[in-house]
Amino acid sequence: MRATIMFGAGDVRIETVPDARVIEPTDALVVVSRACICGSDLWPYKTMEYSGTGRRMGHEAIGVVEAVGADVRTMKVGDVVVMPFAYSDGTCVFCHEALHTSCIRGGFFGTGANDGAQAEALRVPQADGTLFVLPVGKDDALMPSLLTLSDVMGTGHHAAVAAKVDPGKTVAVVGDGAVGLCGVIAARRLGAEQIIILGRHADRIALARAFGATDVVSDRGDEAVERVHKLTGGLGAHSVLECVGLEQSMLTAVSIARPGGAVGRVGVPQDDTMPASRPAFYNNVTVSGGPAPVRAYMEELLPDILEGRIEPGRVFDRVVSLDEVPDGYRAMDQREVIKVIVEP
Amino acid sequence: MRATIMFGAGDVRIETVPDARVIEPTDALVVVSRACICGSDLWPYKTMEYSGTGRRMGHEAIGVVEAVGADVRTMKVGDVVVMPFAYSDGTCVFCHEALHTSCIRGGFFGTGANDGAQAEALRVPQADGTLFVLPVGKDDALMPSLLTLSDVMGTGHHAAVAAKVDPGKTVAVVGDGAVGLCGVIAARRLGAEQIIILGRHADRIALARAFGATDVVSDRGDEAVERVHKLTGGLGAHSVLECVGLEQSMLTAVSIARPGGAVGRVGVPQDDTMPASRPAFYNNVTVSGGPAPVRAYMEELLPDILEGRIEPGRVFDRVVSLDEVPDGYRAMDQREVIKVIVEP
Repeated sequence: MRATIMFGAGDVRIETVPDARVIEPTDALVVVSRACICGSDLWPYKTMEYSGTGRRMGHEAIGVVEAVGADVRTMKVGDVVVMPFAYSDGTCVFCHEALHTSCIRGGFFGTGANDGAQAEALRVPQADGTLFVLPVGKDDALMPSLLTLSDVMGTGHHAAVAAKVDPGKTVAVVGDGAVGLCGVIAARRLGAEQIIILGRHADRIALARAFGATDVVSDRGDEAVERVHKLTGGLGAHSVLECVGLEQSMLTAVSIARPGGAVGRVGVPQDDTMPASRPAFYNNVTVSGGPAPVRAYMEELLPDILEGRIEPGRVFDRVVSLDEVPDGYRAMDQREVIKVIVEP
Repeated sequence: MRATIMFGAGDVRIETVPDARVIEPTDALVVVSRACICGSDLWPYKTMEYSGTGRRMGHEAIGVVEAVGADVRTMKVGDVVVMPFAYSDGTCVFCHEALHTSCIRGGFFGTGANDGAQAEALRVPQADGTLFVLPVGKDDALMPSLLTLSDVMGTGHHAAVAAKVDPGKTVAVVGDGAVGLCGVIAARRLGAEQIIILGRHADRIALARAFGATDVVSDRGDEAVERVHKLTGGLGAHSVLECVGLEQSMLTAVSIARPGGAVGRVGVPQDDTMPASRPAFYNNVTVSGGPAPVRAYMEELLPDILEGRIEPGRVFDRVVSLDEVPDGYRAMDQREVIKVIVEP
């Protein structure tokens, strides 16, 4: 079968690899209908050192179950399933606490050790705990939005939950990528009154407004901080969703939080230390978040997608075939597009 | 009158200064019955650059109201009051949210701009919002415990609240100073099942055990992390109270938190950055805390002191006169004593 392999920064190739198959009795084999390229895939795309064996890529997918191991109970061949970016057994102490990304028997797709989703098929470990069977056909019109349950919509929701978004609150979203845009959806869905998006790309800003952003701040650094304070009566935002992962964006996030407020961070941190330790401390700002347990959020978010109340699928603005995946990376990296669907 | 002034690292003197007096109509003049030396006073004691004018010291006190400004309504001359380490008007948006340390018209005692409490008397701004009238005489036997409402007991409680201590949870307390010890009291009071104290001073550890600590870890660094994991079934602690403020102690605090757990930090941070950004992220560990709004906690904690359910006053193990304050700093800095009461 064919799969996407990254060999180093800027070097993404489609290669023939051994067919994915069921190995453990708890596995499922999933034929990928749709996968994505993720903003987090762009970090290694910028920085990865050359590797002769490379790294399988992709951690978001909807597909059809092609085979299941002897112990799999909750799905059958032919089921349409959405796959979270992490696998988990659904039974450990952390899964029971709805923190599937810390599952004791869990792991992450597309990180080297496991298959990636930008491929014709992939092996899904812990299938019963991991996969979520969808009540629609594989070519349903809602597929783009359902596909965001794999990662970006659940991740935006996690940022909002970690930032303690509640009805009537003031929210700021740092970053206008697909996750930031889903963060806007999540903030609105949870009842935020004012939603300020910090970003500077016209297409993304327009989408943020369509999703419910009430204000736009296109400045950076100190100017951005000053502008958010002006927009919030000098107080700062109750809830800040950090959807980038850079030192500068974390600094901005803490600086625009209101005393007693919270930063929910979901941008994969690119540094060992966190800036603004003192401002966070003196203002009693909570910093929370991490890899989103998107598996835990699927049941909650699904009805809103099925009934059309949220349309996170609008973050996708290009569809590519497997052969076109390398160009999809290029286009996302150059901000030509927001987010890419892969149809293998 | 006489007051404590720090002129530089290791240089604490008792000097004659202009008498404290009511200046604003919202002020009260308080004659200090008892003040304290705080662990946080030891930071400038170690590092302060020499200053010709020096800095007034002390931010914890119980005293008697000697005079009030024309606008003061909630206390009268002769009342016995406890003073939180920050003053606040009690009416601003943050005071209403119980975050008095961010009061828009507030500030901190003993920081240079305002009078310090290690003195015969001090001017208390925003007296109605700041001072809490005690229902006891100024020489009540409970004075040491009541005095901890000024800072350390409220601060330990804040760490526990920020770390989300709840009945049945596993708690680790990093630091065996007076705040850490009060953190143990707070954790037990809030129903923690297991309370691990990280510290290495025999006298403090003994007190921690008396306060409810169930386990002691006297290692440091990686060994301490390993030991806490062993004590918590390999999972880490739900709630970690960071009561030191150093990079190493924060690193330990994050490293011993269970995935999905929380660190409540009240140790004044000595660095601009926070370590362990990635571990905190990947484990979805929340980092919260800051200067404790101890004014907000007085009503809740007072009955437990008056009725003898908690005895935070046991953290004091030396009483000094004003003249002996410099030696009190020395003794605390050298860990000869845990915490010092000043009787001016």
